[in-house]
Order: sequence, then structure tokens, then C-alpha cells
Amino acid sequence: LALKGSNYAGLLERHRIHTKNVEHIVDSLRSERIEVRLVKRREYNEETVRWADAVVSAGGDGTMLLAASKVFDKFKPVIGVNTDPERSEGHLCLPVRYTHSFHEALQKLYRGEFRWQWRQRIRLYLEGTGINPAPVDLHEQQLSQEQHSRAHINERIQDQRSDISGPHLLPVRALNEVFIGESLSSRYAVCSVLFRENFKSCKPSFKFSLHRASYYEISVDDGPWEKQKSSGLNVCTGTGSKAWSYNINKVAHQAVEEILKIAKKHGNLNMPLNMELVQKVTNDYNESLLYSPEEPKMFFSIREPIVNRVFSSSRQRGFSSKVCVRSRCWDACMVVDGGTSFEFNDGAIASIMINTEDALCTVLLEE
Amino acid sequence: LALKGSNYAGLLERHRIHTKNVEHIVDSLRSERIEVRLVKRREYNEETVRWADAVVSAGGDGTMLLAASKVFDKFKPVIGVNTDPERSEGHLCLPVRYTHSFHEALQKLYRGEFRWQWRQRIRLYLEGTGINPAPVDLHEQQLSQEQHSRAHINERIQDQRSDISGPHLLPVRALNEVFIGESLSSRYAVCSVLFRENFKSCKPSFKFSLHRASYYEISVDDGPWEKQKSSGLNVCTGTGSKAWSYNINKVAHQAVEEILKIAKKHGNLNMPLNMELVQKVTNDYNESLLYSPEEPKMFFSIREPIVNRVFSSSRQRGFSSKVCVRSRCWDACMVVDGGTSFEFNDGAIASIMINTEDALCTVLLEE
Repeated sequence: LALKGSNYAGLLERHRIHTKNVEHIVDSLRSERIEVRLVKRREYNEETVRWADAVVSAGGDGTMLLAASKVFDKFKPVIGVNTDPERSEGHLCLPVRYTHSFHEALQKLYRGEFRWQWRQRIRLYLEGTGINPAPVDLHEQQLSQEQHSRAHINERIQDQRSDISGPHLLPVRALNEVFIGESLSSRYAVCSVLFRENFKSCKPSFKFSLHRASYYEISVDDGPWEKQKSSGLNVCTGTGSKAWSYNINKVAHQAVEEILKIAKKHGNLNMPLNMELVQKVTNDYNESLLYSPEEPKMFFSIREPIVNRVFSSSRQRGFSSKVCVRSRCWDACMVVDGGTSFEFNDGAIASIMINTEDALCTVLLEE
Repeated sequence: LALKGSNYAGLLERHRIHTKNVEHIVDSLRSERIEVRLVKRREYNEETVRWADAVVSAGGDGTMLLAASKVFDKFKPVIGVNTDPERSEGHLCLPVRYTHSFHEALQKLYRGEFRWQWRQRIRLYLEGTGINPAPVDLHEQQLSQEQHSRAHINERIQDQRSDISGPHLLPVRALNEVFIGESLSSRYAVCSVLFRENFKSCKPSFKFSLHRASYYEISVDDGPWEKQKSSGLNVCTGTGSKAWSYNINKVAHQAVEEILKIAKKHGNLNMPLNMELVQKVTNDYNESLLYSPEEPKMFFSIREPIVNRVFSSSRQRGFSSKVCVRSRCWDACMVVDGGTSFEFNDGAIASIMINTEDALCTVLLEE
């Protein structure tokens, strides 16, 4: 790693800090005579969740998403502690000062100096027309974070699909968002190429991959179907409105400045275009993209919509209670919280909505 | 296809139209006693290009990109004919009326009623620190568009890399853009899941994939290096300023309307906020993103920049002569014109620039 220019010493140090923080949390819990099971990703499963009265994630926001992904019980609290404040924003975790004084957080919980916060989550129904009536043949592989190798063989036979009549509720709940789009490296071949300069000894690998725009049809709140082409569709919760959705929809002050300049010229306005106004407008606009995690509504937005003779998008974003998507994609997926993906190819229909029964129970400590 | 809800009849019809259009082009050329070799994608190679005096692509913009990708001779004209006007914008092709009267285009060429248009292209240099001195072991596979199967085995041995000292000029020239970002489905495992409702007969495949933000460092026009985290970096030509770059950077009138509303409130302005003004400002702004294909300058833009305590991006977009990128990515690639990709992982450094020697020769017919 060091040879490649990576900061190995920094990596090691962050691991040391994280380990120390985890020990602190465990010690704080055990000193209150609370029974603690400390598990890593691989060992974290629904049986462990069933055993627990509450779940504490020790890591960053990603770890919190993973922790939440196995909790389906509305009354099982999940608390996140940010053990990696250098690298993670921790917006799903407790304020960062509790990382080093977790006992203080526990005291507040004992004294009732907190309130329950229910973060609404999204559920997904999937159905498809014309699926062949045969079981899907799968290979079960252990989930391995360290498995860098691309030597992956997927022997799933394409035309053996289950005969599913009616929409199927998928066993996941999105805490941040569901994203629908084409995979980047969907089909590729590896070719060796000889450089013109004749470097026969070095043959870099070329992957001929297709980056395709995603083509689908969308219906919002049972409205009319609209054909769209874009770089993907994002449907988020209030929690997720701070995450990827925010990055898709926020504007840069560079862009706001340019827009206001053009408006000033066209509207012949007497507007003092200073940095202060530009920054204020930018901040206000970006803040309007955020809303409470507890609101049972979704925000959908289309990433890089392609508008031309063939495709239009009358509504590129907005709030909704229900979003239906019909895939016309070649090799797309639905990605939940950036961690779980489902095939979503031509013929598949997804129905996306919030059901308050799926809410995740977290805590908001009094300050 | 029809069972899945796809429009098979429509697909067949478009193929019929395309085939007819191709015949028309070939007939028009042969009636002028021009020798024509008609090749499909698989047969199109540098030998064929060498044989030809000029290349005519018959398809959409994608076919034009493919045609251009094998032409490195500045004086070998490449002409695009849009045989699929229903599906392709054809902004790289001749105006759509020549599709049905190609002989008219040929007459203009004979009479000199045209001018040469040189579309500037981007070249890429790649270098890396600490690459092991051993040849890369590759499997050569035929490029196959019909190959849907995911049964892909990549036996490339990770640690056998060439010892390349100094930057390596890659044998590609980007006509539209170079895009740098993390692959979506970089590492995944397939797990079978039993539904709670106990549908044992149907086990959908879950791909646990990681969608990561891209982490890299960027230096513009030999300026200071800046760490950035985003959904990727796009560097385009004037030709490409109408393509993906446009979709990344354009604003929706919904957003402009909201921005002007906020500006009006904050600036206490007496501005009539009507649809006409909003549309005008939106169009002007979006048009400012486009520039001539013949200008030897690049436009870089960062897609969904992540700005927080750790990462900032002082310049999210702009024109430049040279862009250098140092990868800190896990499993990223550089994608050229959406069709060719190169590994671009932690330790690799890319230098991106325009050299007028790499321009693509096309024609602009007089109207």
C-alpha cells in the first residue's frame, strides 16, 4: 500500500482509534451490567438481532446502514456511535462527543433524557410479466469484504425463473434510498492490445464496457406513466434526503451566480450581485432539499434526465407517497442504501412506498 | 421479448428501416463508382480503416463513436449517417434528410459545397507508482454484443504488472469525453434468501454490491492538487459538451424557478417572476455549457461533489488545457466515449489533454 502511495500509517492509526472507541463502548455498557455481544459484519445476522434488546453500531454511517438492514422490528432500538469521525460524517450516529463518553449517553437513556425517533423506511414490491415458471438456480457465497478477486462465476441460468404471480415484497427496508439504474460494467470482454510503440511486455487490460443511460417508465402517486431516460432514479426518505439525494440535487454557488447574472440581464434588474447574496440563495435552496426523517413521505429525483425529441420529463423531482417504475433496462439494478442490489431488467415492475410499520427506532438525546 | 412486454414489432421495424437506409447509402456510393466495403462492428478494424479513403458510419451516434475510435489519421474523413432517427439524436451525423437522399450529400462533396470540420479529441497518458515488473496475463475474448451471459472468468493475476516507467500514451482518442469513476458492481457475492413468507420455490438473486463514491486528487492546468470525493469526474471536448457533460451540468427550470424565488425574497427585488423569464434564464444557462467541437479546450465537471468536513471542491467545473488525476479509488475505471474502459485504481495517475494532431476529420455540408 505504501509503495502505491497510499497512506498506510494513516490507515493503521484510524484502525487503532476505532478499536479503542469500540472498547470504550463495550466497557461503558458492561459497567452498567448490560450483557454485550460484540460481533463483526460477518457474524451479524437476524439471530443476533433477535437475541438483543437493542443494537449499537460502532463505525460510521455505513455501519449504521448495515446494522439497520437486519432490523425489522419497529420496537428494537438501533443506536449508532461514530467511531471514525475523521472519515465519516456520522449523520446517522449520535453526536460525536458521545464517542468518547458513551457512559454519558447511557445515563441520559436511564434518566429518560431522550426521545424516540422513528426514521421512516421504504419498502419495495417487485413483479414481472412473463417470467418462466421454474426456480432460480443460485450459488450461495459467503459475503466477504476482503474478497478482491474478480474471479466470480455466476452460474445462474437466465431462463429459469420462478412463476411469481402478483407483487412480491422484498425482504429489505431502505433507510436512505432506493436507486434504480443501469450497471456500468454490465457486459465486457477483455482484449489484449499491442501498443503502437510496441511495448510487447506490457499489455494493459481493456474492458469494453457499455455505459448505458437507464430507460424506464415512471408513475408517481398512481399518476400517468411517463417514459424517461436518465442516469438513474433516486427515491429517498427524510433520512436519505441528506445523503445521495442531496448530492444529486444540490446546486453549486458557481451555478447560482451564473443563473442570477443571466436573470439580472434578462429582467433588467437592479440587483446587487454580491457573494453574500449568492451564498444565501445557494444555502437556502440546498436546505430546501432536506426534510425530517420522521415524515412518512418520499422524495424522488431523476439524475441527469435526458430530454430530447423522444424523451421528456415533466416532473424531474418531487414528494410522493408511491412511485412505480417499469424497467426497460438491459442490465439494471435497484440498489438499496448502497449496499444491496436487485436485478431490475426489462419487464420488471417495482412499487416503492413507505409503510410506517417499517420505521427504524432510534434515539435523540436531549442536549 | 413480447411476453416481457417489450415491443418486438417495433424492434423489427426499426431494423428494417435501418437495413433499407444502409442499402441506400451503399447504392448511392456505388452509383458514383466508389468502391465500398460494408462491414459490421465485429469486422471493423484498423486494417479496414487503412484500406479506406473515407469512412461512413451508418447507425446512430454510438456507431459514429465506434467508427471514430479506430481512426487516428487526421486526414481520413469520417462521415456519419443517421439510419435510426427515431432513436438517436444524431448530433454527430449529417442532418437527417440526407439519410434518404445520400446522393445529394455526395453531390455537395463533389462540388466542394462543404467545409472540413476538425473535431478535437482528448488523449490520455497513464502512469503508476510501484507497479510490479511482470507482464500482465490476459485472456483475449471476442467482443460480442450478443453475449448476455455473466459467466465471465477473469483470470488476470493481480500482481503481475508491467514495470512501466514514465507516462504511457493510451491508444484511444476521446471524441466525446473521458469519465472517471468507481464501478457500481465492483465486488459482490450472491446469496440465496428464503422469504419470510416461505416462498421456497423462488429465490431471487441478491447481489450485495458496494456503490462507492469516487475518491481521487485532481490538478487543473498544472495547479495545486485537490482531494475530491464525488460520483465521478467528466472531462469533455466541444463535441462532448452536448453529450453526457450537458446532462450532468444542465439545470431544470424547476430549479431555476426556485432559485429566483429565493433570490427575489432575499434581495427584496421587484422582479416579475413569470414562466417566460424562468425559461429564458434556463435556456441561456444551459446553452452556455456548449462550445464548438473545433476549440482545442476541454471542459471538466464533477458529478455530485461531496462537500463536508473532509472534502471540499473549490472548482467544480471549468475549461482547461490539462487535467491530471491521481486515483485513490478501489475499483474504478476511466471510460472513453462510453465504450472503452481502463482500470484506474489507487496509485494510477492519468494526464488528460487535447493535441490537435488527434483531431477527427469530418464534414459540414453547406445548406
